[in-house]
Amino acid sequence: MELDDEFLLEVCRVKLNGSSLLTLCNSGQFQALTNSGSTRKVVDIAAVLGKSLGLALVDCSASSETIGVLKQVVDLGCCIVLANKKPLTSTMEDYDKLVSHPRRIRHESTVGAGLPVIVSINRVISSGDAVHRIVGSLSGTLGYVMSEVEDGKPLSQVVKVAKSLGFTEPDPRDDLSGMDVARKALILARLLGWRINLDSIKIESLFPKEMGPNAMSAEDFLDSGLLLLDKDIQERVTKASLNGNVLRYVCVIEGSRCEVGIQELPKDSPLGRLRGSDNVLEIYSRCYNEQPLVIQGAGAGNDTTAAGVLADILDILALFPE
Amino acid sequence: MELDDEFLLEVCRVKLNGSSLLTLCNSGQFQALTNSGSTRKVVDIAAVLGKSLGLALVDCSASSETIGVLKQVVDLGCCIVLANKKPLTSTMEDYDKLVSHPRRIRHESTVGAGLPVIVSINRVISSGDAVHRIVGSLSGTLGYVMSEVEDGKPLSQVVKVAKSLGFTEPDPRDDLSGMDVARKALILARLLGWRINLDSIKIESLFPKEMGPNAMSAEDFLDSGLLLLDKDIQERVTKASLNGNVLRYVCVIEGSRCEVGIQELPKDSPLGRLRGSDNVLEIYSRCYNEQPLVIQGAGAGNDTTAAGVLADILDILALFPE
Repeated sequence: MELDDEFLLEVCRVKLNGSSLLTLCNSGQFQALTNSGSTRKVVDIAAVLGKSLGLALVDCSASSETIGVLKQVVDLGCCIVLANKKPLTSTMEDYDKLVSHPRRIRHESTVGAGLPVIVSINRVISSGDAVHRIVGSLSGTLGYVMSEVEDGKPLSQVVKVAKSLGFTEPDPRDDLSGMDVARKALILARLLGWRINLDSIKIESLFPKEMGPNAMSAEDFLDSGLLLLDKDIQERVTKASLNGNVLRYVCVIEGSRCEVGIQELPKDSPLGRLRGSDNVLEIYSRCYNEQPLVIQGAGAGNDTTAAGVLADILDILALFPE
Repeated sequence: MELDDEFLLEVCRVKLNGSSLLTLCNSGQFQALTNSGSTRKVVDIAAVLGKSLGLALVDCSASSETIGVLKQVVDLGCCIVLANKKPLTSTMEDYDKLVSHPRRIRHESTVGAGLPVIVSINRVISSGDAVHRIVGSLSGTLGYVMSEVEDGKPLSQVVKVAKSLGFTEPDPRDDLSGMDVARKALILARLLGWRINLDSIKIESLFPKEMGPNAMSAEDFLDSGLLLLDKDIQERVTKASLNGNVLRYVCVIEGSRCEVGIQELPKDSPLGRLRGSDNVLEIYSRCYNEQPLVIQGAGAGNDTTAAGVLADILDILALFPE
């Protein structure tokens, strides 16, 4: 079934309004599967078309609930394309299953949105050039926050502005906890062959446990909790600037160390120069030893994320006879 | 026929000494085809194995003489991998033939050595995100030269040091003419769909015609010609620095303009900050509009170039049944 332009524009309108695609269901142009039979139906289709036609199951959700169906279609020889980080940051067993046919999985948009991060690392690895260090700023939200507090603005104010600009999750603690960056770091580490889980990663949260979602509502966090964090961050910013440095929330994968958190970095380094919501990734290998391979650009946004998913789908299609 | 490690090390030794691979011919481990029958033999093999096994013809030469055989094997459905820029910068007719099966050609190492330039641009294009501007420093040699003269060193001295470090072609005018960068610019422009030839590109040479290879020997150029260029470049460097700018030899593809030459750029821009022989490429598109997608790193060297070719070969292999 092919979707025409008019219908796709209608889809965009519905999503822009924050409505569910289910409201379009009676147009007859597509099926929305919501009940428990949906997995069965997807698997049935994958069984018939997956291996021969290059049908790809595309997961743009942010849910762990898709892992089961993804594993089933992979077993059937079907290709998968993920923007969803959860399936790749579950257990090693799940991961091994999902990547068991490396040619049939693409997940560029899980790290740095549409930035060519995964494809670049895969090329370096496949050429036999061992990667020994990856450093990056992989959260547009935290990148924005850190460069704004550097300019002297209070953290509480910066986070509220970021939220109003749509740069954060509905509950900004989902970004400030560092968990999103940790998932990206885990995906990169596993790409390098590290057999580790999320709980092996050292994660620095920008707020203490007492302000976590289990202890405080999002409103209370925004209205009062955040204010209590201003002083500490401001002191760290000032201390760093006395050394000519700035603070950045970075991911480091090196030696046996995989961690995400605030680091003091030279103002005049690629990471230190980073402004706004751009992502940057530095890859050090045998070939890119003293000077890293650097990839930089918008690492968030609906358009770049969608562009990454689309490029993945077309890349998969190239595997199948013309 | 598989080549063992011992033999490959011997190959490296021979090449390091500057000898020809022909000296290894009597080992019986490979065939070197040098006579006029070689094209015929390559085409015969391509006809038998190309389409079914994913045999790729790999061109690591710097010659225009390979165009004929490349076109023949493409017609037979064979894949091609190029580090050689000449075939892609010949006539549009040759170009159209070589890329007529886009899935069966890879040429990452023609621009920026192993840097993921071509794959990144292809991904941006395939996702429907129109590229409207590319700016870059695509010559490690000219990058080194421009950042050294910026430090006040005379051009003549810098070029001689670059030559002694192996950064230049045997006749440095091959680099200083800008022709090598122009070929890279043409490859990128054609990738964007521009139907232009090398003679449509505005090329700034760092030396006048009177010092060209037809008018002067390489020795005379190095010993006397170069000295005459010092003053002019030094004046341009000084003038730029008064504006807080630096000079860089860049490639610009934008609107209807494709040109390579010296530009005055802010010291504090990605191109202005570039030091040594690193390459940098900025890609502007609808998604990467205000802030470009940036790719930076070593853009020359045997190892990165070879890594790019190897990754291309493996990428092609993925098209064929496991």
